[in-house]
Amino acid sequence: MSRDALLTDLYQLTMLQAYHRQGMAETAVFEFFVRDLPDQRGFLLAAGLEQVLEYLETLRFDADDLAWLRDSGRFDDDFIDALAGFRFGGDVDAMPEGTVCFANEPLLRVTAPLPEAQLVESRVINLLHLETLIASKAVRCVLTAGGRQLVDFGMRRAHGAEAALLAARATYLAGFAGSATVEAGQRFGIPVFGTMAHSFVQAHADESDAFRDFALSQPDNVVLLIDTFDSEAGARKVVALAPELARHGIHIKAVRIDSGDLHEASVRVRAILDAGDLVETGIFCSGNLDEYKIARLVAGEAPINGFGVGTHVTTSNDVPYLDCAYKLQEYAGIARRKTSPGKATWPGRKQVWRIDDATGGPREDVVELVDVPGPDGARPLLQPVMRDGRRVSPAQPLGDLRAGVLAQLERLPESLRRLSGTPHYKVTIGAQLQALVERVDRRRVAGD
Amino acid sequence: MSRDALLTDLYQLTMLQAYHRQGMAETAVFEFFVRDLPDQRGFLLAAGLEQVLEYLETLRFDADDLAWLRDSGRFDDDFIDALAGFRFGGDVDAMPEGTVCFANEPLLRVTAPLPEAQLVESRVINLLHLETLIASKAVRCVLTAGGRQLVDFGMRRAHGAEAALLAARATYLAGFAGSATVEAGQRFGIPVFGTMAHSFVQAHADESDAFRDFALSQPDNVVLLIDTFDSEAGARKVVALAPELARHGIHIKAVRIDSGDLHEASVRVRAILDAGDLVETGIFCSGNLDEYKIARLVAGEAPINGFGVGTHVTTSNDVPYLDCAYKLQEYAGIARRKTSPGKATWPGRKQVWRIDDATGGPREDVVELVDVPGPDGARPLLQPVMRDGRRVSPAQPLGDLRAGVLAQLERLPESLRRLSGTPHYKVTIGAQLQALVERVDRRRVAGD
Repeated sequence: MSRDALLTDLYQLTMLQAYHRQGMAETAVFEFFVRDLPDQRGFLLAAGLEQVLEYLETLRFDADDLAWLRDSGRFDDDFIDALAGFRFGGDVDAMPEGTVCFANEPLLRVTAPLPEAQLVESRVINLLHLETLIASKAVRCVLTAGGRQLVDFGMRRAHGAEAALLAARATYLAGFAGSATVEAGQRFGIPVFGTMAHSFVQAHADESDAFRDFALSQPDNVVLLIDTFDSEAGARKVVALAPELARHGIHIKAVRIDSGDLHEASVRVRAILDAGDLVETGIFCSGNLDEYKIARLVAGEAPINGFGVGTHVTTSNDVPYLDCAYKLQEYAGIARRKTSPGKATWPGRKQVWRIDDATGGPREDVVELVDVPGPDGARPLLQPVMRDGRRVSPAQPLGDLRAGVLAQLERLPESLRRLSGTPHYKVTIGAQLQALVERVDRRRVAGD
Repeated sequence: MSRDALLTDLYQLTMLQAYHRQGMAETAVFEFFVRDLPDQRGFLLAAGLEQVLEYLETLRFDADDLAWLRDSGRFDDDFIDALAGFRFGGDVDAMPEGTVCFANEPLLRVTAPLPEAQLVESRVINLLHLETLIASKAVRCVLTAGGRQLVDFGMRRAHGAEAALLAARATYLAGFAGSATVEAGQRFGIPVFGTMAHSFVQAHADESDAFRDFALSQPDNVVLLIDTFDSEAGARKVVALAPELARHGIHIKAVRIDSGDLHEASVRVRAILDAGDLVETGIFCSGNLDEYKIARLVAGEAPINGFGVGTHVTTSNDVPYLDCAYKLQEYAGIARRKTSPGKATWPGRKQVWRIDDATGGPREDVVELVDVPGPDGARPLLQPVMRDGRRVSPAQPLGDLRAGVLAQLERLPESLRRLSGTPHYKVTIGAQLQALVERVDRRRVAGD
């Protein structure tokens, strides 16, 4: 991941210079939250915290950065000298990655001297937004796939390298089996999957030769792409080739279909494979899939064993961004609030309390000031993760976080499982928080 | 940018191992193209070539990559040893960045030994797709803004670090004035812009104090954000503060409004500024803007001097991906074609010929085999950019490419300037190319 301190908006640096000039370095509290959920998302899955913590731990201005800032002519030498020693030494409280969450709930709170909490805004949003966006899309596929294998195929049309890698991470966290992106395996230990492309078949004079060459080269993982010309003809060639491969001890694990009507094609291909004694050979499908298409294929009982899901998930195609923000809620011990039309914020340091239903699934949340005790039986979702710039505990393995998500999904109420229709999940703003809003607004009006 | 060789799909490596085993290393020709334009895009702006050339020039497997591949247990030692010496030594022909282009037109052609041309597929698509996607969205803002300043504000909700940086580059290429992302300035020499955030105002006990502190700290670039509480009240404070700042020789360059009805707010704020003798102080607007909102504000003659455009452009919100592909068109001297339903390709090495209209704008294109002479007066859009893995000429400065785009936009016919409605731009498939399709299909059927 990029650790460049200049990966930020210029205004963070111009504001920092003004803070520096005025000596404004008292404690600031910022919170990251999503203002509204789009209609196509009944809930979000919090993700990206690990990358935020890495960023905060390693953030510093190197010599090139300082030289560039000096050459820009926008900043005083005194300020640039101060940046040389810049470190993030604040506190972070956050929901664990993989937590089901909703609008107006802080997913993360930063408590630090104003310049430190301010500078990190752009990149903190950039990381939390991306992974939460993708995990929240991917989990919808997981909920509809009914246990069938899901693999991230989205690198090529993800928005750049980091989007591809973090989408692989976020989809795995959300319950995918793994990713086709090799570097995601190298960096995050995510299982990697791969078959063959149409070009492999095209480069051979004959499709059967392509299948044979591939199987002999990858005898332990034979998944043959059969739709380069015609899926049924391809399936018949697979059946014809199987006895020869069996003599080499090679088993054809699956065939892949990447185009056309996947339901119809899978039914016909299944029949051909079964008639050819390849009942153990699975059918894996891909091609602009999303949760809606998967739901239709599953509901129609298409004989498909797994799905490669790419572009629609790694770009979160139906909802390519969340209306999220990282806002100042308190400075120098005083709660703060912006009241811009349509963008007013909830002031103060807040906790999200979750009240579970009888099965342990989420029933209702309360957002309240952090020093107010929670409702009976409720559990606080934000946990301390960083103190004085250091992690409270080592990073949790990604596989454990993923297992937690899968366990959580089992207890998810029916209303949140639906792909469309506004779910009626209750998020209450606590009485003390409401009272604070009134006090902040009165104070500001009196001060005007 | 990431130069990691493992930033690819696993199947590229499994296919490479099979090619290695079979000694399949004859010349392959792949082309990158977009299958269909979405309704919301009358044309595309080709972008991302520079990053592709950097990637191809520097691509290699380092010791960590090779160790990871070995440990994965998926590959033969012999193949991994061969990867250690892997270099891209092929040829690239491409449209210059900033070229107006259309569906079914190759933007880039790679001619190289099969393994080299194959391995790079995932990352070549990833780079060309992202920048072409963003430039094609951004240019719509440029066409509607009528010369008003446009600044990229999109880092925070871009999909990761690379998306933010390359979106800054692509929007600048398309005619934006610059970006708020500091690192985009450092890496690409793009002009950077910045004002202040709401948190700056909120951290001060008094909004006027915030304005004064900011102006004194940034006397040469005073842009004050006036909508933290109420835009009109904010504008009156700016007017009240102006004489004091004038005594320090400080001129208030602009105010920024980031919420509410921007037309109404800008009219009222303009009146307040004018009445307060701040006729030279501009109004800069931001807040979920896109080309449609800009078009309405411009058509309504809102007194707005510039726009900060973020999320909608850096995520290409209405069209978050293009239906693009990088496909094998020829191998070992023989043209190749896939015929999958809905995804059939045009075989062979192709050139795009552009026929300009009387003003020098694009009138009609012809896609034809590369060795067929173009129509009279037509110019070929694909140019040699790399031979034997080396650039044909040094990278063109980004500012020059941008100037070329702006000149091209002046000559763009009215039908392509519209924000919606399918334009009737004619792209003809040449007679020789059509004849080749028939030959390839006959050959395949005969061979089956």
